[in-house]
Amino acid sequence: MRKIEHLGIAVKNIETSNELFEKLLGDGPYKEEIVESEQVKTSFFRVGNNKIELVQSIEQDGVITKFIDKRGEGVHHIAFDVPDIRAEMKRLSEAGFKLLSEEPKIGADNKLVCFVHPKTAGGVLVELVQNID
Amino acid sequence: MRKIEHLGIAVKNIETSNELFEKLLGDGPYKEEIVESEQVKTSFFRVGNNKIELVQSIEQDGVITKFIDKRGEGVHHIAFDVPDIRAEMKRLSEAGFKLLSEEPKIGADNKLVCFVHPKTAGGVLVELVQNID
Repeated sequence: MRKIEHLGIAVKNIETSNELFEKLLGDGPYKEEIVESEQVKTSFFRVGNNKIELVQSIEQDGVITKFIDKRGEGVHHIAFDVPDIRAEMKRLSEAGFKLLSEEPKIGADNKLVCFVHPKTAGGVLVELVQNID
Repeated sequence: MRKIEHLGIAVKNIETSNELFEKLLGDGPYKEEIVESEQVKTSFFRVGNNKIELVQSIEQDGVITKFIDKRGEGVHHIAFDVPDIRAEMKRLSEAGFKLLSEEPKIGADNKLVCFVHPKTAGGVLVELVQNID
C-alpha cells in the first residue's frame, strides 16, 4: 500500500456538503462524477497528494443512504493506492481478509478498485485502488 | 491543510488490532505511545507519507470505548497537517466550525492538536495537527 489514495465520506446532499468541505478544506472540489456501477454521485477535493471523496447515493435505498440511515453522515471508506491490485487482492485474501468482488471493478476516477469487507478489517471499509493509466 | 497527517481508528484491543493491521498494511507499527491527556494507547503505521493511528481507551468509559459501544470499531477521526494551527483554528471558527478546545493541546506523536466537532463537519471528527519541531 503506497499511500492513502482517498477518504470516502458519505453525505446526504452533495451540493450542501461541497460547500461545507470547501469551507473546511479551504478549496472547492476539482471534479464531480457519477459512478453508474455504484449508483453514486461523487466529488473530489485535493489535500496535498491525498483526496477526499464525497459520496451520495443517486438511487433510493442505495448503499450510501443505508449507511447514513444507520450511522449518520461521516467517513465511509479508506482507499489505499496499490501498484498491482490483483497481487494485493491475492495477498489479502490469503491473509484471511474477505474481498467484496473476485475481480477488480472500474470505480470512480477511472481506476481499478476492490473493496475489503469491514468485518474482516477492524470495522473499516477498505478500498484498493490501482491507476489504469 | 497540507495533507492527511493520519487516520485514527478506534479499536478494542490494540495488540490484536496491531496484528490485523500489520497483515492489512503489510508492515507493523513503527511506534506505540500512551497519551495520558486523552487516556488512550496508540500505535502508528506508515502508509507512504500518511499514517494510520490505532487508538484504544485505557480507562473505563473512555471516549474510544464509548465510540465503539455506539458504532463499533472503525474510523474515529481524520487528522490534517496544518502549518499554523492557531491560524487554522481562527479560520475554521470564523467559518462556523465548532472547535473542541480554545487552545491547541499536546497530542500523540508530540504535536499540537485541536479537534473540530463532527456535528459541524459533516459527521467527521476532524483533528488539526501541527508539528512542534
